[in-house]
Amino acid sequence: MVAGEGDTRAGAGAEPRTTMEDVAREAGVSKGTVSRVMNGRNWVKPATRDAVLEAMRRTGFVANATARSLAMRRTDSVALVLGAPATRLFENPNYSLLLQVITDELALSDYSLIFMSGARPADRDRLARFLRGGHVDGVILLSAGEPEVDELIRLLQSQPIPVMVSGHPFPDGDPLPFVAADDVAGSVALGRHFVDRGYRRIGVIASHLEAAGARIRVSAFVETVGARTEPQWLVEADEFSHDAGRAAMLTLHRRAEDLDAVFAVSDALAAGVITAAGQLGLQVPADLAVAGFDDSVIAGRTTPPLTTVRQDVGAVGRELVRQLLLAIGGAEIRSIVLPVELVIRDSA
Amino acid sequence: MVAGEGDTRAGAGAEPRTTMEDVAREAGVSKGTVSRVMNGRNWVKPATRDAVLEAMRRTGFVANATARSLAMRRTDSVALVLGAPATRLFENPNYSLLLQVITDELALSDYSLIFMSGARPADRDRLARFLRGGHVDGVILLSAGEPEVDELIRLLQSQPIPVMVSGHPFPDGDPLPFVAADDVAGSVALGRHFVDRGYRRIGVIASHLEAAGARIRVSAFVETVGARTEPQWLVEADEFSHDAGRAAMLTLHRRAEDLDAVFAVSDALAAGVITAAGQLGLQVPADLAVAGFDDSVIAGRTTPPLTTVRQDVGAVGRELVRQLLLAIGGAEIRSIVLPVELVIRDSA
Repeated sequence: MVAGEGDTRAGAGAEPRTTMEDVAREAGVSKGTVSRVMNGRNWVKPATRDAVLEAMRRTGFVANATARSLAMRRTDSVALVLGAPATRLFENPNYSLLLQVITDELALSDYSLIFMSGARPADRDRLARFLRGGHVDGVILLSAGEPEVDELIRLLQSQPIPVMVSGHPFPDGDPLPFVAADDVAGSVALGRHFVDRGYRRIGVIASHLEAAGARIRVSAFVETVGARTEPQWLVEADEFSHDAGRAAMLTLHRRAEDLDAVFAVSDALAAGVITAAGQLGLQVPADLAVAGFDDSVIAGRTTPPLTTVRQDVGAVGRELVRQLLLAIGGAEIRSIVLPVELVIRDSA
Repeated sequence: MVAGEGDTRAGAGAEPRTTMEDVAREAGVSKGTVSRVMNGRNWVKPATRDAVLEAMRRTGFVANATARSLAMRRTDSVALVLGAPATRLFENPNYSLLLQVITDELALSDYSLIFMSGARPADRDRLARFLRGGHVDGVILLSAGEPEVDELIRLLQSQPIPVMVSGHPFPDGDPLPFVAADDVAGSVALGRHFVDRGYRRIGVIASHLEAAGARIRVSAFVETVGARTEPQWLVEADEFSHDAGRAAMLTLHRRAEDLDAVFAVSDALAAGVITAAGQLGLQVPADLAVAGFDDSVIAGRTTPPLTTVRQDVGAVGRELVRQLLLAIGGAEIRSIVLPVELVIRDSA
């Protein structure tokens, strides 16, 4: 079986090539319908599409996929570009979930996902060459709003293929279409909750304030709680990690010992704040209330569990793929903002 | 620039095609040397290879990559197949690191990484079709030894292209080549440490004992500590997660209240054991010593920090790629076992 498959593949060039006519005959449809399924630009009934795809498989048409892509200048591939190192990005479990949803959604549409790093200058050089080579039909950018993302965005803006961005990485306007959770609504809801609970001296721990995502969360929250916070009670952590949140809380505590609540702009940061509170001998929430943002699996694992803002990561992933494939098919590309939900647990 | 690039790409079919002669002339080498660089099967001096690749870029030869791959039956792509859902796999931070190292190493060799899920039956059907279509030159399988991996391995065994597996997923012999850390040496070192510390009633928390990785760790450890453990003090958790480790520790405590030490076969499990110890009012390590395995970033974040076994994840990733590319180039494929190191922190 192994040898047989190998031989078939190695010798395929010498065999008569399966044509669109063969597929059309096998599926019992017109050649035009096969063409519509292949180029994906026009709607075909799902049952018809399935019949054509099945006929392609039966006739071995799939083995000619590379030739077909070449003829059509379509690659049936999408690049997923990481704007930060995988170790940093996937520390937020929501990014693993996003990766999984995007992989699954692209697979359902028979697209290949080409995984690429874009965090370092060498990565971006390679990415630029790769995109110039026409190896993919579109790009999805995953980013936590790192400073490096600006260069990545300029690079992606100069490409002729559609690009979708996960989250709000844009400090100045929207140079590329994005899918993001409603950071403003989430931060306002959390700020109102802090006010309702009567917290009066509120610290804020953020990271990457040069990026729009974190900046939007901080400014919407700060506006909502008003005089209950002060500018010097905002500490910027080095990154969105547990360790960085812990260090930032220790800094914040040196600046203001008598805070009664802290909002951290991600669950990982908030988990670090809870660890620091333990080290400082502060009970959460009695001495210090703590809230996060994301509602990743981290939120259920802290002691006490985190009050946070839930983002529907599945919906973000599905919309990223849906909008991108529509754009690849020629539709106008749209940015999408998805609703969020305040989740009140025990920490605040 | 944007429009120009788009036009060039769309109209490339009508332009005179860059040939190997053009590249050879530009690089100042023979056509045979260009061919050797392209098929990668024969050694070429790095400086010469760089000159040829640079000439390919300058002459626009890279834009014909799909045509070249078609002519050569080489795709310059490798599939990275996940044997478990991304959310489960990347809960172990070492897998994020492994993904990053593999991505970087493949990029250095100008290979594309195609990211595929293989966890569910529908994923495997798609993977089988994809591999039959000849879209990749080789496969790397990432797996934490889930039960589903058996079917994946059978599928990958039937392919004519090289496959490398991360870790020891093979309960019965070695059906596919792998790169793994030395689980036996690590577990023996940890067992000796437990004996040296004088622990006398030792529990073990594992997961996926049907897979070789976890089974090897448990059996090497149990043999080393001998009569200091008993079969009923081994609890199998549902998965390698913090939550599963916590639940398993509560079960273990019901079976044996007076254990003085626990070995958990992953850091995530061990972190859950420490959480459970807190709930049970046990001080770590005074009342209960706890050790893990992996030395992922989790190990430095528990309170107290974890005693564990360090695997060199970077080396695993580099060897996975190196062995696979050698095999794609026609070399005999080899399994590799890499050394580990006992890391003694405060938890045991």
